[in-house]
Amino acid sequence: MRTYKLTIAYDGSRYRGWQRQPDTELTIQGILEHTLLEQQGYGIEVNGSGRTDGGVHAEAQTASIQLPGKVQEAEFCREWNQRLPEDIRIQDMELVKNGFHARYSAKGKRYEYRIDLREKADVFTRKYTYHFPEKPDQNAMRRAADFLIGKHNFAAFTDRNGEQSTVRTIYDIQMQYRADGEREKKLSILYDGNGFMYHMVRILTGTLLEVGIGKRTPEETAALLDHGERWQAGFLAPACGLTLKEVYYENQDGFRKDV
Amino acid sequence: MRTYKLTIAYDGSRYRGWQRQPDTELTIQGILEHTLLEQQGYGIEVNGSGRTDGGVHAEAQTASIQLPGKVQEAEFCREWNQRLPEDIRIQDMELVKNGFHARYSAKGKRYEYRIDLREKADVFTRKYTYHFPEKPDQNAMRRAADFLIGKHNFAAFTDRNGEQSTVRTIYDIQMQYRADGEREKKLSILYDGNGFMYHMVRILTGTLLEVGIGKRTPEETAALLDHGERWQAGFLAPACGLTLKEVYYENQDGFRKDV
Repeated sequence: MRTYKLTIAYDGSRYRGWQRQPDTELTIQGILEHTLLEQQGYGIEVNGSGRTDGGVHAEAQTASIQLPGKVQEAEFCREWNQRLPEDIRIQDMELVKNGFHARYSAKGKRYEYRIDLREKADVFTRKYTYHFPEKPDQNAMRRAADFLIGKHNFAAFTDRNGEQSTVRTIYDIQMQYRADGEREKKLSILYDGNGFMYHMVRILTGTLLEVGIGKRTPEETAALLDHGERWQAGFLAPACGLTLKEVYYENQDGFRKDV
Repeated sequence: MRTYKLTIAYDGSRYRGWQRQPDTELTIQGILEHTLLEQQGYGIEVNGSGRTDGGVHAEAQTASIQLPGKVQEAEFCREWNQRLPEDIRIQDMELVKNGFHARYSAKGKRYEYRIDLREKADVFTRKYTYHFPEKPDQNAMRRAADFLIGKHNFAAFTDRNGEQSTVRTIYDIQMQYRADGEREKKLSILYDGNGFMYHMVRILTGTLLEVGIGKRTPEETAALLDHGERWQAGFLAPACGLTLKEVYYENQDGFRKDV
């Protein structure tokens, strides 16, 4: 068997998330496996680096597959892409060492949450940003974000019960603001970490936005770490604003192992 | 009567173009007039600066309307936007002198044509760019574009028969290329001119792309001006790549009246 690493982009708008489900065809994994079965004539499991929620996008989700032998990657991809709907694209396919697994070998991830602060939502990015027509205090958000960086118990920042451990490390949170009069007012929050739990990035974002509009202070946000409960954290920011930007593996440029 | 100038953004993907049509609800003008009738209780004509084709987008289409008296612009817009689908947005509303007409007062327009040159189409901009996975010679395209600038008879570059005059002036054609490895390879062509005929920007773009891939030379393109016929010019580039960026009026910054 040969193991291949895939890099996949998708517009998650019309999908119920990454994970295959018995009752709907509309999942990314389901569509990938279905089209691969058509192409190869036998079933192949597509193992993602993790699940993305319904409506969440990916610029570079990764997945691993096992094939019985070597293939011409470029041709394999081209044929596969022809079978895929235009909102899912295999960007890259790479032969990797046996033992590689997109999920278990992953060392970290980068997510981007995009917020449109204009009074009138931008019609062209409306499916990939969250329209939040307020004037959040970005300095306060920055101070709150600084508290969140590091190794903490993020139990207050997930909607999943029953995680074995709710300790995660956030390596960095970057905030990027771009404004061009009334034509553009976009705030992007980039999260780098060793792993993110169910809804974690969206709850972190909702909490930071509540800091921004003065509903809570940066210090109150810090107090939620290690001790807080879900109801004390902020709102769940909508899925459409979230994009999985990158999955980091060992020895990869740009990946920060230590805080 | 008071005259107002509107600035309107729309994602044209699902529409049959700007102009109201008797047999379909899916036109920008039709939807604007229908929602305005609902809001005001009487019919008001929305006069655009020009028609955009089916599938063509606008960042700043302009239109004029006449109302019986003064209104609170911000509130009027907010109420109207609430009635509009999320792919059409009134960006701005401004009281102007009586006699202003979005079309007859317009002095020029800027269009942008966006081309995605990557092998695999970008899933996030696929509705707003034309996927053309080739390596066009941009220097050749630039030379051809330089011939097109100026006052010429563009009869070869329109699909409309029966225009009173097919002489137009193109003030400038800018080409902008942005590349980031395999993540992004985008070519934008910006056209400024005093007016563009039916399909003109799309035929100009198709012709420039044919120069880029060596199907015709810049000099052959120049020879089409003043004497050429439609069949001698290039292909009609798809509507989805085209966006109306700006409509220029008298005394406006950024508008170049003379070549």
